[in-house]
Amino acid sequence: MTWPRSNLLGALLAEESAEALVVLAGSSRDPDLAPFVGGARLGDACVVAHGGAAWLVYFTSMEREEAARAEAGGVELVHPADFGMGTLRREGKTHEEILAAAVQTALNRAGVVPGRVAIAGRPAAGITVAMARTLEEGGWKAVSGRGLMLALRRTKTNGEVEGVASAARATVDAFESVARMLAESTVRERGELWLGEERVTVARVKRLAAQVFAGHGLEQPESSIVAPAEEGATGHSTGTPARVLRAGESIVVDLFPRGRLFADCTRTLCVGEPPEGLVRAHGFVLEALERSLEAVQPGVRGWTLHQRVCRLFENKGFAVPDKNPGTQTGYFHLLGHGVGYELHELPSFRKTGPGTDELRAGDVVTIEPGLYDPEAGWGVRLEDLVVVTADGMTNLTPLPYALDPRHW
Amino acid sequence: MTWPRSNLLGALLAEESAEALVVLAGSSRDPDLAPFVGGARLGDACVVAHGGAAWLVYFTSMEREEAARAEAGGVELVHPADFGMGTLRREGKTHEEILAAAVQTALNRAGVVPGRVAIAGRPAAGITVAMARTLEEGGWKAVSGRGLMLALRRTKTNGEVEGVASAARATVDAFESVARMLAESTVRERGELWLGEERVTVARVKRLAAQVFAGHGLEQPESSIVAPAEEGATGHSTGTPARVLRAGESIVVDLFPRGRLFADCTRTLCVGEPPEGLVRAHGFVLEALERSLEAVQPGVRGWTLHQRVCRLFENKGFAVPDKNPGTQTGYFHLLGHGVGYELHELPSFRKTGPGTDELRAGDVVTIEPGLYDPEAGWGVRLEDLVVVTADGMTNLTPLPYALDPRHW
Repeated sequence: MTWPRSNLLGALLAEESAEALVVLAGSSRDPDLAPFVGGARLGDACVVAHGGAAWLVYFTSMEREEAARAEAGGVELVHPADFGMGTLRREGKTHEEILAAAVQTALNRAGVVPGRVAIAGRPAAGITVAMARTLEEGGWKAVSGRGLMLALRRTKTNGEVEGVASAARATVDAFESVARMLAESTVRERGELWLGEERVTVARVKRLAAQVFAGHGLEQPESSIVAPAEEGATGHSTGTPARVLRAGESIVVDLFPRGRLFADCTRTLCVGEPPEGLVRAHGFVLEALERSLEAVQPGVRGWTLHQRVCRLFENKGFAVPDKNPGTQTGYFHLLGHGVGYELHELPSFRKTGPGTDELRAGDVVTIEPGLYDPEAGWGVRLEDLVVVTADGMTNLTPLPYALDPRHW
Repeated sequence: MTWPRSNLLGALLAEESAEALVVLAGSSRDPDLAPFVGGARLGDACVVAHGGAAWLVYFTSMEREEAARAEAGGVELVHPADFGMGTLRREGKTHEEILAAAVQTALNRAGVVPGRVAIAGRPAAGITVAMARTLEEGGWKAVSGRGLMLALRRTKTNGEVEGVASAARATVDAFESVARMLAESTVRERGELWLGEERVTVARVKRLAAQVFAGHGLEQPESSIVAPAEEGATGHSTGTPARVLRAGESIVVDLFPRGRLFADCTRTLCVGEPPEGLVRAHGFVLEALERSLEAVQPGVRGWTLHQRVCRLFENKGFAVPDKNPGTQTGYFHLLGHGVGYELHELPSFRKTGPGTDELRAGDVVTIEPGLYDPEAGWGVRLEDLVVVTADGMTNLTPLPYALDPRHW
């Protein structure tokens, strides 16, 4: 049995003129290690991939059952005993020395001849420095495997797409709970929203979403955004916890939880009467989103979609990033990004650089137009998460777009 | 204003004969970057520390307010404009090239002369490889800053100790909720625990704990352990989600959430009549815990405490790790570990190696004796989290130790 993406990995290694890939990781949550181990949970681990196969090294016999799960997914195992873990430990070898012995064993087993070796993973930088030196002494030259891994991870297995979809379902659930909380709140003096005998604050909304995610077994390692009015208008505030939400103001809610993989979705809500500018902008953003979603299909570049949205907003009189670089009003970010083991992955919606080529079936991307007016104190962003299919896309975050949660 | 731990850092750099420390990080959650930025939330960032001061480089003007929070904590800022971020981006420079320009600017500003530079943080390994090459070209030699950062992080500020204590308070809250759920459950056929019209499973207990943590704004990036009977007896299972909990079996609950910093606590519960062996072992484990807690004070080595517990358990007839290495029954792990921005930090309870010297006031450590019998199908571990004080310790996880949650 071979590891599922071994052909692609072989081609990517050939492109880099590299003999092998070495992934060094502190845990199976490392986004570069995760594709090799399926859902297995491991602490320190490495992977050596070469010639169509991949060897997973683990470091404690307590993890043999988890390692066996990874083996069932097509990788070969290098057990702690294979590189003398117990002896090395007793001899007082350093972490770096033990790692060097482990990788050496895997390289030998894989039959990797001296040459360039692409390095990936997110170990402590000192570990990488030591490993690069060890490889050098063995006749290998360490080169960056970052681009290669990003390209490899862009191509997702069915299981990985389902991992995103599953996180997206929980996100839909969280948004419905948040909308319900806001819809059920009452407006009191100064327009403040109350539910029960407490004000509805940014922290309270975030807590509710977090509890929904916890119920689904998801986490939010990148936090979340609940940004009312002036905070949502600047595009960089995640929301001040104690800030009380008010009727008539925009509330940008951007949730991006992680299960095995990430999901990402944004809605903008407003309880009661929204300012006129917000209503108008919301209409344009929704139009941009819907047009973009219709246009998503294999063969279209993210940059092309982004530019179309720029033209749409420009025609409505807003500043846009390709014509007004650095603008802090109007539209000032990219239309989308890939999503996977990290929140921001390939494909890229930039003009140039890695992963800026045409979208392909299986790509998982966000589409997230937005308009912001810091002077008027409102922001509006609508973001859906989609998987590109042979003839279009499937929307993984089917939720209402209405500003008023009472219309959800 | 200087950065609080600059004297210690200076001494550690001198020990390594290094001119400066360079931390490369993908976010402020990087455990090596976190000590420099206080609670500020940043994406990609670097720190260059030299001669009693530290420079924080950030990469997008959208983060200027968060960066200013870090500045208030004593670091100097290198703004994106200072190294021409906008221009570099427009010129299509790679991530590696932009990072090189940023670090170069910070090194110049800090006045670091050519020599050894300690590298830390957890950037993608390819980033480290590229940075090491850049430094080399500038006359610097990259060496591992891993040991240095672990030593630096061991010494905590008051704010950091409070960060652990705050996570510990949430952990106490979570345990009380879990104990209440188990205490309120009823025993039905096959001894299965039910609450409402649903069985109490591992997943249900984990979900409850996760919801409590979410309510406190904490996450569980390292997951959690709810391991019943045979699963808790092996010491390496985190618990099978669908497994239904039963009366009369041991349930090892080990929670280790993260706020700014981690907390870590374990209790073992048993609803109803426990097996005789479990009761006996629970008594010994509690005795080991209480004796160890009494002995915690500056000047005592973790290894000494560990050995005393080994002798105690050995005298009761159990296999112990220092006499029976590799045993999978009895006692088979270390007595404790440091806790901080990572779950496992210094000080170490090992015999030799980094951080195995005497405990000092301000150290934050777990004390977690345990006994396991895979054949009989039970495990028991009790773990408290303590901060070492001038004359002893303060227990951050004051919770009952009783097996039966109905006695909590």
